[in-house]
Order: sequence, then C-alpha cells, then structure tokens
Amino acid sequence: MSNQEPKLPAGFQFSGTACGIKASGKPDVSLIVADRDVVGVGVFTTNQIVAAPVLLCKARTPASGIRAVIANSGNANACTGQSGMDNAVEMCRYVAQKIGCDESQVLVMSTGVIGRPLPMAKVNQGIDQAHGNLAATNDAFLSAADAILTTDNARKISQREIQCGEKSYSIAAMAKGAGMISPNMATMLSVVLTDAPLAVADAQKLLSKAADLSFNRVSVDGHTSTNDTLLLLSSGQGTPLSGESLETFKTELNELAIGLAKQLVADGEGATHVMQIHVHGAADDKAAEIIARTVAASPLVKTAITGGDPNWGRIVSAAGYAGPKIDPTKTSLKILGEVIYENGVPLPFDASALSKKIKANFEVEIDLQVGNESGQATFWSSDLTTDYVTFNSEYTT
Amino acid sequence: MSNQEPKLPAGFQFSGTACGIKASGKPDVSLIVADRDVVGVGVFTTNQIVAAPVLLCKARTPASGIRAVIANSGNANACTGQSGMDNAVEMCRYVAQKIGCDESQVLVMSTGVIGRPLPMAKVNQGIDQAHGNLAATNDAFLSAADAILTTDNARKISQREIQCGEKSYSIAAMAKGAGMISPNMATMLSVVLTDAPLAVADAQKLLSKAADLSFNRVSVDGHTSTNDTLLLLSSGQGTPLSGESLETFKTELNELAIGLAKQLVADGEGATHVMQIHVHGAADDKAAEIIARTVAASPLVKTAITGGDPNWGRIVSAAGYAGPKIDPTKTSLKILGEVIYENGVPLPFDASALSKKIKANFEVEIDLQVGNESGQATFWSSDLTTDYVTFNSEYTT
Repeated sequence: MSNQEPKLPAGFQFSGTACGIKASGKPDVSLIVADRDVVGVGVFTTNQIVAAPVLLCKARTPASGIRAVIANSGNANACTGQSGMDNAVEMCRYVAQKIGCDESQVLVMSTGVIGRPLPMAKVNQGIDQAHGNLAATNDAFLSAADAILTTDNARKISQREIQCGEKSYSIAAMAKGAGMISPNMATMLSVVLTDAPLAVADAQKLLSKAADLSFNRVSVDGHTSTNDTLLLLSSGQGTPLSGESLETFKTELNELAIGLAKQLVADGEGATHVMQIHVHGAADDKAAEIIARTVAASPLVKTAITGGDPNWGRIVSAAGYAGPKIDPTKTSLKILGEVIYENGVPLPFDASALSKKIKANFEVEIDLQVGNESGQATFWSSDLTTDYVTFNSEYTT
Repeated sequence: MSNQEPKLPAGFQFSGTACGIKASGKPDVSLIVADRDVVGVGVFTTNQIVAAPVLLCKARTPASGIRAVIANSGNANACTGQSGMDNAVEMCRYVAQKIGCDESQVLVMSTGVIGRPLPMAKVNQGIDQAHGNLAATNDAFLSAADAILTTDNARKISQREIQCGEKSYSIAAMAKGAGMISPNMATMLSVVLTDAPLAVADAQKLLSKAADLSFNRVSVDGHTSTNDTLLLLSSGQGTPLSGESLETFKTELNELAIGLAKQLVADGEGATHVMQIHVHGAADDKAAEIIARTVAASPLVKTAITGGDPNWGRIVSAAGYAGPKIDPTKTSLKILGEVIYENGVPLPFDASALSKKIKANFEVEIDLQVGNESGQATFWSSDLTTDYVTFNSEYTT
C-alpha cells in the first residue's frame, strides 16, 4: 500500500446531500451510482420485525445487474405498514428514472426514527440534488458517507488497495453506527464497493463470512435493529477472481470489515473503552463465539471495565453461565497481557497497577481460555457508562 | 388469612449474628436448625463456575434427614479451590457437632466477595454465637433473614398460612437479592420453610417449578452467580400432602416465590421501576419466556422505562430478535393497559400522558402479544439507571 490515499474503486459515483428529513439540517440523503450493471450482494438484520427497505434489498440480491444504492438517514421507514413499502419502492423508482435503469436495479437503505412516514416530497428533492452532484471523487465519497450517519460522533470509512498477482484493485467502504439509537433504535448500515471482479456467488459467500467475523462480532447494547444492512457492490469486469487472488481479496475484505466494525464499537454511545474479548480452548468456534458474546454483553463486565477494575470474577462467571461447556479447572484469564486467573484459581496481582493500565488504554484486551480444545473467537464491545444510560433514558421531555 | 402475623412453621429455630466477616460489623452469620430430621430440597445456580457451598448442597439434597442450614454473608467462598471446599465442609461439621447430627445433615450457603478465603476463626465464632441465640420466635427469624443480606437495601421475607381442608400450615421464607453485586457478583439466596408434610420427591418437584415461575423469571442484569441457592425445608410430620391439598400448597408456594422474586427486582441496584413483562400468543410457554426475558434484558427497553418513555419500537424490536418465531402482523403492545401498537402498526396515543403515568408507577406492566397461539409467560426486571452504572463501576479507587 502506498503512502498516498488509496484510490476509489473504478466505476462508481457518489453524492451526499441534505433535504430536510433531519430537523438539524445535516446531510440525510446518500446516493451511490454505478456506471454500468454491477454485482450486488447483501447481509441483513435477523430481526423478525423488518423495515421495508430491507425487504426490498433482500428480494433484489444477490444480483449481477445492480446500478445504484439510495439511502436516507433521519427516518428508518420501519413499522409503517404498506405505505412504508410503497415509499421504499418509490425511492428506487425515482432513482431508476434519473439514471435510466429498471427500479429493481436500485437498492435502498433507511435509518433513523421508526414508526413515522417518510416525507417523500423532501426525499425526492434530496434525490434530485444528490443526482445533480454525483462525482467519482474522494470528496463525493465522503459526502455520501456522511449522509448515512445519525447519532454517530465520527465518520466511518475504510479504504484499501489490494494486490492480486499483477493486478491492483480498490475497496472503499462506508458505515454508520450500531447502538447509536436515540430516540429510537440502532441501525448498522454499511456499503462496501470494489472494482475487483467477483462472481455473484463468491461475493455473497465472502460478504456473509466477513459479516460473521466483524459486524456480527460486535455489540454496544445487544439490540438488533429492524434495518441493519450490509451491501457489497463489485464493478470489476473480466474474469472473476478465483484461487489465490480470491483468497487475498477475502482476507482483505475480512480485515476491512473488522476495522469498520471496531469503528462502530469505538463510537458506541457513551463508550470510554472498547473491550476485545478473545476466547479460546472452547469445544468449537461457535461455542467460543457464544462465550465471548456473553462476556461482552454482561453489564457487570462492562461496568467493571468502565471503572478500570480487573474483575476476574465477573468475567469468569459470565463464561460460566454462557451455555457452552467450559472446563473450570482449565479456565484462565489475561487482561492486557497480565495473567490474573489461572486454571480455576485467582492469582495474586497488583490490582492498582492493572487498574491504572485499564484506565489508560482505550482498547482493553481480554484473553479468556476456557479449556484445552481448539474453538476460538474474538468479539468487540463497548463498555457501559452513565452517559449511555443518560443518552437512552433522558431524551424524552 | 387472619389479620395477625402468620405463625412461623413449627419445628424450626433461628438465629442471626455478626462475627466480623463484614468490615461494617453488620450481621453475617445465619443459622436455621430443625428440631428433628426434615425434608430438604434445593435448586441451584446453573453457572458452571460453582462455589463450594453449592457443590455440597447439591450432593446433600434432595433428602429427608436435613437438620440445619448455616449461611454466611460477606464472603462467597467461591473460586478458592480445595480450601474453599474444606471450609464449607468445616462449617457444616462445626454446626453438626453443636446440634448433634452428622455433618451431611447440614446445608450451607455463602454470599459476598469471591476469590478470598473464608476467615474460619471468625466464622466458627459466629456459629458459636448463633447457636447460643437460637429461638423459635419471629425476632429470631428476622435476625436470620437479616444476616444473609449483602448490598440489599431491604429485608426480604414472606410468610403465609395455608388452609388444606381442615388442616392449617405455615410457610416462611427469607431471601437476599440478585444483582446486588458490588464489589463482585450477584447471588440470590433463599430458604423456604414449612410445616406442611411433603414427600421428598414432591418437595423437589414443587420447588423446581416454583423457581421456574419466580426466581428464574426475574433479572436485574442477567448475570447468573456462582452461588445462587434456593432451599425448601419441610418439618411436617404424618402423611405427606397429596391430591387437592398438594395442589393448594403448590399454588401458595408459587405465589410466595413470585412475591419474593419481585422483592429482589424491586431492590435491584439503582432500580427506579419494576417492569412486569407479560408475553402471550407465542408458540408455547418456553417461546414466550425467551421473548419476555429478551425484552426484559434489553438495555434500550430498560433505559426507556427509566426515562418514562413508552417506546414501542424498542420493545417490539426486542421481541423480533429474541429468537422464537413471532407473527409481526399479529404483534400488539399495551403499556399500563394502554394499547399503543396493534397488529404490527403503531397507534396514535398521548405519549406525554402515558410517559407521566410510567413515571408515576413503580411497577410498569408491559403486555406484549406476539401471535395467536397459546404460549405465555411473565417476567420481571428492574430498569437501568445511572445509579446502577455508578454503583458497579465506581467502587474501585
């Protein structure tokens, strides 16, 4: 990778604009248009209460003829019945008309408050503006990335160039936060764009796997939104990647997705720490994941880390109630590299020094061995602060 | 039931005392002694990291020859390896020696900080004192109940008299709180005493069922302790209850256990509301329970109730990701009796008035229909406040 900014993937134009869905006047319409038909695949919320845009995207992917992604923030277009679906279809139809394609070639994402009808006059005006400003520049990419944010404190993007043999490709991705919820509920949105040529089936498989290792391994508050959407669009032409090149792409995609997911956690509401929980020695990777997720979700573990407390009891006992079999006599724990619990017994350690170390580190690595088998998983979570509670309880007046 | 205080069950003596395990000097040793061999059964933590006293009680119940329960607070005797087991055995042995029985006839419970050795000289001195003060009086019962408390704000007891045909029996129970955790982890301890004659197998079956409907249906923070113990001792003589009498006892036991469990939640750290979540219309009771538990555990639902927000989106979406199948088009929600979401669509309602009502009620009833089938369950949870976070993060210095 060079010292220069990575190139944007070829074949895409971007735009972000404000149309007044958000009372604040911040950007709320984001448009990505491909120059020609591209591969489009997606991974979506597992919530049974599903917003209309998700239903549309699920029906339209995986596909090889995608032309655009239209997104709005400030209104999730969820729980609004048939009119919600009509509005999601209308957004796609209006974009399709502008760029000259079938409405089924357009994907749509929404995030924001739920249960309120989309202000379609504003949205369509936003689409007009966004279409007028499309560009293949980095500034346009950043505008599009900013227009999907809601209560995020920071823009979330990731770009990298990949060398596959003699060929070089780009990936660029944007995301908005999970657990960023006021006054309604979290949504994670992300779009990954690449000019690496991918077969539709490979793209879908790679994206699902990347999601499992990244966005599905982070939590702020464990609440799964009605709108979560992760899309991958590939504009690459020619022979799809295979063999070693595909493996290289897969590795890079996984790393990019993990990096984005960690950006979400770091920007979790009120977060003062990111906990990285690595569980190993479990019966299999799934068991390790469940244990890591349970430790990550424990309010007692989260608040201990908030307070800088190396509280092995809360961590070990969370593993004990997670469900999968653990071996208590082979259970050991390291925090920030220091072993404080070994083979079922707490070790003497300088709690004050380790507490200072936790307080001084934004990212706190927790390494938990739960047996001698080969299952392992890593999970990331924010801590739990009074700011989180205030933010999520005091927004009503 | 009369206006007088219910009688204590016949055949038990009680005592509570302070021996200095707690630095505060508060009572920390609790002793219950039966006049003769009684039926004793238990339900215990499902955590795989299990404290020594729990292992002992599990091995010694169900049984018909129990003579005593010795409990200490201030130290959980957990995660201390073989010495922890030696100390738990020693506590039973010392009590057995005092009252003249085999050590296997004594049950033991501990609660408090984990990972520290029990100060056995103090504990034995406490047993001396407690044994010296045994009495079958209400004051002695209350002393025993107080000596198992840790960070609880209030004593937790329940007493009732039961009429089974011509015969009258008593039940008396004491408990200490779950989610009362600083500086380590929660423990729920409870002992239910009765003079109703019960067969061992019936007692075990009834206690397990009562636990499922009560202590297993409440959560403060979802963390399952290493020490949770619920015991039932029956001193009743003569023919064990059966048929209609046993059913009557079962109903009363369930109600008593639910009442105690609600006391635990009401005293949850920092709690300003108890949420009662009733889920119905699910495929079966187990599905309803999982949904109710998921809604109850959602930090977003908890903080909404803290803030007095009738946030249907957080509640309905929590049901949507709980796991069991729901029917989104048959999903409806009432808060404090008011329908605000019906068959998948939010209804117009006076949010400000309902918010005031939530703020004015300590107990907030949430009624969630998730389909048209017959499964139902009720779950109780505390809300989540900044006080909870402060209490669980700022205890280290």
